[in-house]
Amino acid sequence: MSEKLHIIKVGGAIVEEDASLQSLLARFSKIEGKKILIHGGGRLATTMASRLGIESRMVEGRRITNAETLQVVTMVYGGLVNKHIVACLQATGTNAIGLTGADAGIILSHKRHVKDIDYGFVGDVDNVDDTILSSLLEHGLTPVIAPLTHDGHGQLLNTNADTMARVVAEAMARLYEVTLIFCFEKAGVLVNPDDDTSVIPFINSEIFSGLKTNGIVSGGMIPKIENALEAVSHGVAQVLITKADKLDESCGTFVGKTRP
Amino acid sequence: MSEKLHIIKVGGAIVEEDASLQSLLARFSKIEGKKILIHGGGRLATTMASRLGIESRMVEGRRITNAETLQVVTMVYGGLVNKHIVACLQATGTNAIGLTGADAGIILSHKRHVKDIDYGFVGDVDNVDDTILSSLLEHGLTPVIAPLTHDGHGQLLNTNADTMARVVAEAMARLYEVTLIFCFEKAGVLVNPDDDTSVIPFINSEIFSGLKTNGIVSGGMIPKIENALEAVSHGVAQVLITKADKLDESCGTFVGKTRP
Repeated sequence: MSEKLHIIKVGGAIVEEDASLQSLLARFSKIEGKKILIHGGGRLATTMASRLGIESRMVEGRRITNAETLQVVTMVYGGLVNKHIVACLQATGTNAIGLTGADAGIILSHKRHVKDIDYGFVGDVDNVDDTILSSLLEHGLTPVIAPLTHDGHGQLLNTNADTMARVVAEAMARLYEVTLIFCFEKAGVLVNPDDDTSVIPFINSEIFSGLKTNGIVSGGMIPKIENALEAVSHGVAQVLITKADKLDESCGTFVGKTRP
Repeated sequence: MSEKLHIIKVGGAIVEEDASLQSLLARFSKIEGKKILIHGGGRLATTMASRLGIESRMVEGRRITNAETLQVVTMVYGGLVNKHIVACLQATGTNAIGLTGADAGIILSHKRHVKDIDYGFVGDVDNVDDTILSSLLEHGLTPVIAPLTHDGHGQLLNTNADTMARVVAEAMARLYEVTLIFCFEKAGVLVNPDDDTSVIPFINSEIFSGLKTNGIVSGGMIPKIENALEAVSHGVAQVLITKADKLDESCGTFVGKTRP
């Protein structure tokens, strides 16, 4: 039986407001054992870009990252958000260490090939170095990972935080029994998006097909669940999609092969 | 005999221009054995603050750091500069890991007490964790440290990069034979500030007193040499003040107890 590892992904809307971030971090710090936090910061990046007179262009929720925008996300994700989270976690007694994929070479990617859309400096992940991450964990450190990677040739690349969480979870599943938790504003995958009590408690591939056919899940929830199912199919023990302020209560939507 | 460790401090003017930065990093990557890079970024922070409509206030070369300015330096030092350097070093085969003083709790400081001037969110260093830095070095990693610290209660603090270099060197001198190199635009401490061939090859406390009395060193060079002498008096084997593009040539001004 492998040791347990919790990997928590927290999105831009939660890190944007200090009250919700502090609440999330207090809950995160109480998770026992080894853990990794992966954060977004897209909303703050959009605000900062706007203050600098840089237009934010999104295609299907993905940011077009030209050289100027890459500077903004490097500042906001790698500096502002990451170091704020690290300092706050240190205050709770969690020995956090902030990293991008470039640091210690933990996540190597390549610049996305141009098909219909040129996303610019956006990275698709090729490799996660589980050895170094595991070594940091063994030293009692808690990695806090910003959604930036590098190509090994000096180029930083912007990478989707949900994807980062999935690939890190998949890599670490070779060494640990991994629980991956996607924290967001809703209580889980909902039958009625406006009703937090309508949480679907469990989803596997078959249930997901049914939910899509019935139109119960649609839009941005589809890639989120696909991401979760892919993690499970690559060795992650279980995935939970839940509300940030319920992180420690084992509620929300479980995605896995078997019911928990 | 302890193992050797090189600690290089590189200032804002060099990191500001990519050509000079790349040249410095190429030389840094060729230093054999264990090494740490500590960088500034003040000029880029001033530019970014200006773009954001934030006034930069300096007193005797030190930045007054209000809450807005702290955000700027966190973005620029911890994100933009630090992650760019890390990605570039990774490309040279140096396994760099970018850190602030908050990461892994390596450098604890307190907010500077207000006497005549309120410097705001500026940190005076209380402790450097040599254990964790040494553990990273033993794992083949090269720490790249941004001039930010934390107070252990969730507050990031802006800290002078020369001071960071000195306190890190002093702490690491308990475990290694440390050479501390301050890289800047000049060839060393100069008799004639406009003549790079007028380098003073060696300075100890007695020589420094004479140079001050004669008015040969003055202004900003005085705290730089004081910093170097303090490092030497706290166990650092030798300090070198030199030009960034001569980093690997053992020239410049040596500061130490005995001539090299």
